Amino acid sequence: MKKTGSLEALAEALRRLPGVGPKSAQRMAYHLLQHDREAASTLGHALLNAMDRIHHCSSCNTFTEIEICETCQDAQRDGTLLCVVETPSDQMMIEQTLTYKGLYFVLMGRLSPLDGIGPRDIYLERLIARATDGIVQEVVLATNFTNEGEATAHYIGEMLKARGLKVSRLARGVPVGGELEYVDAGTIARAMLDRRSA
Amino acid sequence: MKKTGSLEALAEALRRLPGVGPKSAQRMAYHLLQHDREAASTLGHALLNAMDRIHHCSSCNTFTEIEICETCQDAQRDGTLLCVVETPSDQMMIEQTLTYKGLYFVLMGRLSPLDGIGPRDIYLERLIARATDGIVQEVVLATNFTNEGEATAHYIGEMLKARGLKVSRLARGVPVGGELEYVDAGTIARAMLDRRSA
Repeated sequence: MKKTGSLEALAEALRRLPGVGPKSAQRMAYHLLQHDREAASTLGHALLNAMDRIHHCSSCNTFTEIEICETCQDAQRDGTLLCVVETPSDQMMIEQTLTYKGLYFVLMGRLSPLDGIGPRDIYLERLIARATDGIVQEVVLATNFTNEGEATAHYIGEMLKARGLKVSRLARGVPVGGELEYVDAGTIARAMLDRRSA
Repeated sequence: MKKTGSLEALAEALRRLPGVGPKSAQRMAYHLLQHDREAASTLGHALLNAMDRIHHCSSCNTFTEIEICETCQDAQRDGTLLCVVETPSDQMMIEQTLTYKGLYFVLMGRLSPLDGIGPRDIYLERLIARATDGIVQEVVLATNFTNEGEATAHYIGEMLKARGLKVSRLARGVPVGGELEYVDAGTIARAMLDRRSA
């Protein structure tokens, strides 16, 4: 069988989605054509629509359709606190805890020299401009506790401390509901070092 | 964070791809927005284009952009042979063997009562019309050797034999390069029953 042009182009385009190989791409293309043409049209429009409308919030750098996102515009929030996260998903997780009422800055990544991701790729110049606006007093570093997230936090922390800002990091320790027997030694060691008066 | 409308719509639409759950859909959406907007636009256009242009070949039922696909239009092919396959991928596999020069009919599925896939969903009326065009003399059943594929082959075979057509099935046996020690008993049993003079 000679594949038709549009079908070949569709399979090629689906392959560029993260985690989709040639076999899955072909399966997806056949599935859409045979069983779910409506989903395919919806996805097509959603993609073009999203790429056309979504850009970075000029304040916190997250994805938004408006110039400054709703979170940044919220007058109820504490402008003296700025929480730095890696991704919009991380921001969402923190929002769900209902314990933080300050503003955010979304890096859209983490420093990762091995992957060629340097300070410019995580918008550090914009972060510095944002953090030194004269209103922000404390920056809470909430990057992940992976090696790369820790390195990113360290790098940003040093940079902001040099500009006279108070910098904090999410506490590390035993997870809520955690049993010591099943927690890794590194976490327990850190919890011991960071122990607090009861 | 409140997700913006277009972003939410994009993640929702990506979820409808087979094998993509909510987490993957969100990861894909962020990846496209952050790192590969060009791929997203390409995919968007490819989807709309494909849905707009691709339909079933009026002769063999495969996907094509023209009324009758190139394979069916090929005058070099033997019109007395019709090979029935489940999917365009199966047809491609047979084409690659370079051993078959007849025409095809693509079911776009298999009978599967448990999934609610009956004779109408695999275009059996069109297959009968195609096979009884007066030119086709032998129908080669090349559905998969799974339970559903075998059932489909049996059902189609009975139907076509009742209409006076010669019906054959791909041979079953030990795979080329196969060692008996590692071949399953069912395959060896079938190869023994179907043994041929050497």
